[in-house]
Amino acid sequence: MSSDIDVLVREVGLRDGLQNTETIVPTEGKLAWIEAELAAGVREIEVASFVPARLMPQFADAEEVVTRAMALPGLTVMALAPNLKGAERAFALGVHKVDYVTSVSRTHNIKNVRREREASLEDFKRIVQARDAAGLKGRTQLAAGLSTALGCSYEGRIAVDEVRQCAAFLAEAGADEIMIADTVGYADPRQVREVFKAVLAETGDIPVAAHFHDTRGTGLANVSAALDCGIRRFDASLGGLGGCPYAPGASGNIVTEDLCFMLDSMGLRTGIDLQRLLAVRDIPARYLGADSLSGALARAGLPRHYRTATERATA
Amino acid sequence: MSSDIDVLVREVGLRDGLQNTETIVPTEGKLAWIEAELAAGVREIEVASFVPARLMPQFADAEEVVTRAMALPGLTVMALAPNLKGAERAFALGVHKVDYVTSVSRTHNIKNVRREREASLEDFKRIVQARDAAGLKGRTQLAAGLSTALGCSYEGRIAVDEVRQCAAFLAEAGADEIMIADTVGYADPRQVREVFKAVLAETGDIPVAAHFHDTRGTGLANVSAALDCGIRRFDASLGGLGGCPYAPGASGNIVTEDLCFMLDSMGLRTGIDLQRLLAVRDIPARYLGADSLSGALARAGLPRHYRTATERATA
Repeated sequence: MSSDIDVLVREVGLRDGLQNTETIVPTEGKLAWIEAELAAGVREIEVASFVPARLMPQFADAEEVVTRAMALPGLTVMALAPNLKGAERAFALGVHKVDYVTSVSRTHNIKNVRREREASLEDFKRIVQARDAAGLKGRTQLAAGLSTALGCSYEGRIAVDEVRQCAAFLAEAGADEIMIADTVGYADPRQVREVFKAVLAETGDIPVAAHFHDTRGTGLANVSAALDCGIRRFDASLGGLGGCPYAPGASGNIVTEDLCFMLDSMGLRTGIDLQRLLAVRDIPARYLGADSLSGALARAGLPRHYRTATERATA
Repeated sequence: MSSDIDVLVREVGLRDGLQNTETIVPTEGKLAWIEAELAAGVREIEVASFVPARLMPQFADAEEVVTRAMALPGLTVMALAPNLKGAERAFALGVHKVDYVTSVSRTHNIKNVRREREASLEDFKRIVQARDAAGLKGRTQLAAGLSTALGCSYEGRIAVDEVRQCAAFLAEAGADEIMIADTVGYADPRQVREVFKAVLAETGDIPVAAHFHDTRGTGLANVSAALDCGIRRFDASLGGLGGCPYAPGASGNIVTEDLCFMLDSMGLRTGIDLQRLLAVRDIPARYLGADSLSGALARAGLPRHYRTATERATA
């Protein structure tokens, strides 16, 4: 992470948000959204998913979106690969970061990708090998995600030790980043502390990111708990767009704007201009309808006399 | 606090919620709401405000609501008194708890009650004397609130030392409880820790409660930070009803249902049955419209296989 920010906020609305929408956002709309977030100061964006277009037509333009996003100076471009085949599509473009996700919940993993959890974990090793064989080691980072790490619609609570073991496997397999996801919004701050402490004990110097959903209102409380553990990378979605089609009852990710406001208020610099970020909402709203976006900061506006973390640090 | 719960959740929707609604909820509706929350396990409810009926016709039935609520076994009945006159009305009924609020922000205090902050603080002493003179010491508790303690629409950030001094004054003056309120939803978890630690250093054995609004999405994160400081009393409003008519941009209190879910998930017993609590929403919705109630738990439902804090403690 560059030294002028304290916390990296990664926008995942273009992937986690759009994978649940019926309306297909045109490529130009996606690029406008990416460019506007970058201009607001967002430095890392998950822009697409390399799933087969017949399964998710929303991502039929993944190659074009990734290629054009990679041409934007200062942006780290991430794309999801659901399997080795998807990862190979990503490697062909030399994308900056590929994320690959395994469910800690065995049942959810089978429902989601029709494979046993252990088979999915083993696949990550093959993705690392394919990346290295493509000569992309040190150029394309591999972020390994663990979904349903804080609860599962099918299995309920997930044992902390299961998460720890999976994280240890991925760290050993060569992950450049580990992402811990509360896919269905079951987590509470106490559990977050417990799970992240267990994960951090296995991951050494590998950065750990948190991916929270705000399904039951605890999203930012969980961020605060993760901050207490030393986590400094968070996924979020503009307007809280998103969810998981195979996890009944899941709703959106934590809201990027609200996350950035809380972090900034806490004196943690994100590099993101809150007013400019709020203005970006107009772009997805144009395609998906303003009603599809949530967010408390957008509703209430910044506090009067608000001074940003940077302003306070330099005052 | 009784030993079978870890955290006291106080419902304030009938006061802080209704003071901003144009629709007047009939007395029978208020009583049905109070009874249903009590049946769900809520042990303390702020049921009315002793403001002049010409200013807030919503509370013209304050005497009747308080009297009938006090007849319900097991319920602690609290009512707001904006001044000595209001407190005297409350004392005449022997209400269990009277809360009286001063703004830490001098500007907000003048706008809200047309008095200097120091005059408002001094009035609390007179309220204590009036309570004692009425022979209610040990019977009617006096909760002293400090609003805008974490930010003000007029003044912006509020110095921690101002909050500390006001809390020290109220503790010295004989408050049975001190309530720290983020009236306009400016607070972040770091600030909450700072302010509550400063307050707790002045309040000795006097219980301190937190009253958060969720205006900018940080409400439950602030609860979690307050829990870290040892706070075990929280105000909340069913469906997040509420705000402050004199604080531009303020929106509702934290949602009682979401607060109870987070606490329960953390293993903190509230004594409140989440499903029964969710069902209570039908009562205010009947009068105010379902759209006036927010809440993530109501939208998403309890997690599947959810086990309550009590079930887990006794498993």
